[in-house]
Amino acid sequence: MQLSAVYEPVNQELGEVNEQFRLLVDSQKTTFPELYQMLSLVLVGGKIIRPTLTLLSGKLYNHNRKSLLMMATAGELLHIATLVHDDTVDKASIRRGRPTVNKVWGMEKAIILGDYLFARAGEFTAATGNLRVVKLFARTLETISRGELRQGFSAFNLNQTVEQYLERIASKTASLFAMATESGAALSQAPEEMIQVLKDYGYNLGIAFQIVDDVLDFTGTKKEMGKPVASDLAQGTITLPSLLLLERFPEDNPLKNIFSNRNKQQEIKRAIEMIGNSTIIEECYQMAFEYSTRASRDLYLLPDNPNRKSLLSLANYVLERNK
Amino acid sequence: MQLSAVYEPVNQELGEVNEQFRLLVDSQKTTFPELYQMLSLVLVGGKIIRPTLTLLSGKLYNHNRKSLLMMATAGELLHIATLVHDDTVDKASIRRGRPTVNKVWGMEKAIILGDYLFARAGEFTAATGNLRVVKLFARTLETISRGELRQGFSAFNLNQTVEQYLERIASKTASLFAMATESGAALSQAPEEMIQVLKDYGYNLGIAFQIVDDVLDFTGTKKEMGKPVASDLAQGTITLPSLLLLERFPEDNPLKNIFSNRNKQQEIKRAIEMIGNSTIIEECYQMAFEYSTRASRDLYLLPDNPNRKSLLSLANYVLERNK
Repeated sequence: MQLSAVYEPVNQELGEVNEQFRLLVDSQKTTFPELYQMLSLVLVGGKIIRPTLTLLSGKLYNHNRKSLLMMATAGELLHIATLVHDDTVDKASIRRGRPTVNKVWGMEKAIILGDYLFARAGEFTAATGNLRVVKLFARTLETISRGELRQGFSAFNLNQTVEQYLERIASKTASLFAMATESGAALSQAPEEMIQVLKDYGYNLGIAFQIVDDVLDFTGTKKEMGKPVASDLAQGTITLPSLLLLERFPEDNPLKNIFSNRNKQQEIKRAIEMIGNSTIIEECYQMAFEYSTRASRDLYLLPDNPNRKSLLSLANYVLERNK
Repeated sequence: MQLSAVYEPVNQELGEVNEQFRLLVDSQKTTFPELYQMLSLVLVGGKIIRPTLTLLSGKLYNHNRKSLLMMATAGELLHIATLVHDDTVDKASIRRGRPTVNKVWGMEKAIILGDYLFARAGEFTAATGNLRVVKLFARTLETISRGELRQGFSAFNLNQTVEQYLERIASKTASLFAMATESGAALSQAPEEMIQVLKDYGYNLGIAFQIVDDVLDFTGTKKEMGKPVASDLAQGTITLPSLLLLERFPEDNPLKNIFSNRNKQQEIKRAIEMIGNSTIIEECYQMAFEYSTRASRDLYLLPDNPNRKSLLSLANYVLERNK
């Protein structure tokens, strides 16, 4: 499946979101060249799934085109702001195959650039003129940062449950997917029950997306992923594949060595191999499949048009994608 | 002058702002003890000037008490969030005489805690139900972070002008003071011209406040200030006293050595002495006095009541304070 086909019904609007980004970057060119450089690095090349979700959800019903564009832009900016801070926290040096802000300009400037992007995201949200989505935006940032804090405090902790993992990815990923769909619906004349259907769709899609993301961190190549293989494990973050590995081999488990920094690189390699030689990846996909199915379940209640079809396709795409 | 006398007309409301903080902290106690600890550290002991400004400005006119309290709380949370990130950027280890978040929990968690506080501040702002202040809030965070970035990129640069210094403190301090007064006025039934008077008051007060802050960084003791003396200089940040020192002694100037890391501690001491032996401190106070005067200038246009009197007293207090 090609993402381009999924994006088809909102292609024009996505072009306008891109144009908002271009304007934001270019407006700094003469007044603040360093900021221009930083924005040029981060505001390009993403999968733009979140703005797509907002646009598809909003276009199912009567919508105010301008508000929808503002919110779609805000969602992607919020996402990018969190990535800038995540990379700084993780001391990551590449993202999407390009150097990170913290790598190029140092962690000090990366912290402040992230704040700047939060502010810009907030401004685009406020430009919708809709208080409901403003509240949703602030609450989502709260949920994301609370989830990131939880992740930070649970790093290098071997005693974690699948339930805790799901809670964490709900906070850090599904909340933003749900914000994207709920805000799109809330900015159109969707009935309240349909806003709820779209919100649940976004939430479940987000969980499926993140499970696959965590699988790809183990199965993808550095080139495909644009970042090192098993980067989560190196950070002390246990995701579903490593969690299942721990359950499967409670005694001789490479994670114990990785987390106590014994032969780290070698043991990471061993963990990847052990996961590859087991049924763990299939089990992860099975769980992602269940959430993807849950995401699609109530879509039939929405108006039957190309936007709905694309939402359905996206639920399949998140399972099939390989980067 | 005692701050307590200035705060008198809004004492009860300040107690309620404090109560909002207490609720925010306590709500984490059982669900997320680590977050509870972090919030307990940062949500106490400030000068709470910003909420005071919002409350005094709002209470000059007919106001919605709940909205005003929400906004006063939001302004202080925004301030604290920026402090948490500033300390992380500066690798500062003490603030208000207590260890910083980055010192106790590391820079990774400090970054995310700051984000969490931005989110909470945004939620309190949205709870006012007033889109104008929501927009003002987001724009202010943009201004602050842009100013911080500018400061970062100009660190260790000896070629700076007083004008650039004023621009920087306008962004990082005056913008938030102006947001505090403007939002208070906008949430009451103040006429538009009076909102402007209060906004200008906040802006000029903020400039005066920051000039004095930068002077106290040189003249205060570590105990009074709750942080090391000349901490700005150690970070490569040129403030008004060191800027005037550079102008005065362009040839043999300790800053050149400090910024190229030659006998840093000794040269910082020399800079403090040279400033002490000159008229630089008087000149800084003269400039702060001018901004404070500008702040008070149009206050006579506002309704004559204890709130107005307190605003006037605050304009004097910022010059007299010694910590």
